[in-house]
Amino acid sequence: MRLERFVKLMNEAGYEGALISPGTNLYYLTGINLHEVGERPALLVVSSEGQYRMLAPGLYENVLTNFPTTFWRDGENPYEKLAWILAEFHLSSGKLLIEDTMRADWLINIIRIANRGFEFHPLSSVMRELRMRKDKGEIEAMEHAAKVVDRVFEEILTWDIMGMTEKELALKIELRIRELSDGISFEPIVASGENGANPHHEPGNRRIRKGDMLILDYGARWKGYCSDITRTVAVGRPNEKLIEIYDIVKEAQEKAFRAVREGVKAKEVDRAARETISKAGYGEYFTHRTGHGLGLDVHEEPYIGPDGEVVLENGMTFTIEPGIYLPGLGGVRIEDDVAVIDGRGRRLTRTGRELVIL
Amino acid sequence: MRLERFVKLMNEAGYEGALISPGTNLYYLTGINLHEVGERPALLVVSSEGQYRMLAPGLYENVLTNFPTTFWRDGENPYEKLAWILAEFHLSSGKLLIEDTMRADWLINIIRIANRGFEFHPLSSVMRELRMRKDKGEIEAMEHAAKVVDRVFEEILTWDIMGMTEKELALKIELRIRELSDGISFEPIVASGENGANPHHEPGNRRIRKGDMLILDYGARWKGYCSDITRTVAVGRPNEKLIEIYDIVKEAQEKAFRAVREGVKAKEVDRAARETISKAGYGEYFTHRTGHGLGLDVHEEPYIGPDGEVVLENGMTFTIEPGIYLPGLGGVRIEDDVAVIDGRGRRLTRTGRELVIL
Repeated sequence: MRLERFVKLMNEAGYEGALISPGTNLYYLTGINLHEVGERPALLVVSSEGQYRMLAPGLYENVLTNFPTTFWRDGENPYEKLAWILAEFHLSSGKLLIEDTMRADWLINIIRIANRGFEFHPLSSVMRELRMRKDKGEIEAMEHAAKVVDRVFEEILTWDIMGMTEKELALKIELRIRELSDGISFEPIVASGENGANPHHEPGNRRIRKGDMLILDYGARWKGYCSDITRTVAVGRPNEKLIEIYDIVKEAQEKAFRAVREGVKAKEVDRAARETISKAGYGEYFTHRTGHGLGLDVHEEPYIGPDGEVVLENGMTFTIEPGIYLPGLGGVRIEDDVAVIDGRGRRLTRTGRELVIL
Repeated sequence: MRLERFVKLMNEAGYEGALISPGTNLYYLTGINLHEVGERPALLVVSSEGQYRMLAPGLYENVLTNFPTTFWRDGENPYEKLAWILAEFHLSSGKLLIEDTMRADWLINIIRIANRGFEFHPLSSVMRELRMRKDKGEIEAMEHAAKVVDRVFEEILTWDIMGMTEKELALKIELRIRELSDGISFEPIVASGENGANPHHEPGNRRIRKGDMLILDYGARWKGYCSDITRTVAVGRPNEKLIEIYDIVKEAQEKAFRAVREGVKAKEVDRAARETISKAGYGEYFTHRTGHGLGLDVHEEPYIGPDGEVVLENGMTFTIEPGIYLPGLGGVRIEDDVAVIDGRGRRLTRTGRELVIL
């Protein structure tokens, strides 16, 4: 049982308890999926002695029927009920784990009832140990999610995208992913021409036209697990500078992929990409890390950045996605999902990386 | 300028400063819309002396070109840079406002660098004063968003929904909203038959069939502002019990709407709905508050619940949405968006509330 393994790890690390708001950690530990709980506090309380209980809004009385839960209704103070649970579990001081994505106003209220008795630490510091190494079932789900985005990319190449707006193309990609999987893992990024210079560009009303470099960054979800792919294609023959940076990014991505092996630190993978781009003279235009872990969350451990101290192990899964962004001109990014298997990197996304000119 | 009014309010309430992560408050104050910033810290720091500066990931260097910003790149420690800004603004102790939806791990790191010098309070306690009363432009945007959902409801009544799955209908509603507006304000809820007993049901693969009560709850966004409507329709003649609760919910909704006026507390509006349902014997099956404020957020102040102490004023906008949920059988909810104008309630959503039998 994952919850038991969590309690064991929590004890080893000297934590007294954990407060876990809805999200992928709660889902990983219990299978409970309270999406859109919004501003109403919902928490799993776990003690180092192995006791656990949910606190949840009355709205979920008909959902949480098989899990020990204390409900609070609108008009009641949920933090009073939380205080009772903490007292029942003899939790009054010491190190407490807090779900990283919990709303800060919940934590402020928890600080208040705790009367400064606790010291707070991010839950991810313990959960990463559980979640970072995927088991066979998890890898299979990720392979399926990756196959979906590969297939969608093949299809995109057959679509008549010239003259479409970024928004229109993003919607078309989203709908196709939703048909083939459990849904998107994040809102597709379609960045055309000069918009490609913003790595997190939000698709807008710019129409795709000849000479554009076009960045397509999207992902699917399968059984909770994410894929995340980026390909950059040329619409007609682009500016020479953009072709030059395409080749550099492609080489950087390949070098980073080859650097993946068991026992190597994440930052070595980042360095392989970063050095390639720096040596080519574009270091300052590679403004983000080389990749991020991938799993139930689209961003999770291990992060593949200059500060990545995690030592890679079999079962770890992450993206490799270097990019170069030239303000006013455009950008290039190439991203694959990679798993460490039998000591080496294996690409889960397998779409070609040669420059396609549409 | 909204930022100046915010600094003034902050001073009056005795706060030394504010840390505002991306979201609707940041957008309301500055127009900055950093969607999907994810786990990378981005914050607006504001001091009670009126100084302000963004801290943002290097990813946004090409976006935040016209706003005073300190960037941090992957591999750097953003909290060190935050500490410099706090020092520059002479912020080292006292009451600090924290954006309610900030990730808890950011707050934990802020607590660490602050060395326990600060006392933390939710930003909403000050922002609600600014945001709760909508100006003319805001009401107009909300009216437009409401018109969109009215129109979509009219169209739904002409669709051939018999035999569709909840998921299929939810997607069809979503796509139509996206065509008519800036997008959905939340994922549509389609709850058919017994699924209607869960107020926050996630659309699944159940097919809509004869005898179902069908709850449709969806919203549009226009210029950042939300609408949010619920109608419950019958597919063929449903169970008598469901017709009975439909009439009770409709009466409760009407009574709550009539209770809306300037100078009345939010809880009086809740009471009007709750008493109607309780007197009819279904009090325990009305498991949520009567409504919530609506604006840039789909849930915001003023909340219309048994504990709603906000005194209603002109310009306030909120939903009125009582419901009754019978486990195993189904549910009924009727929701309108309401604005207080010239001292009285005005419905922004105007779709009929008579029971429609498809």
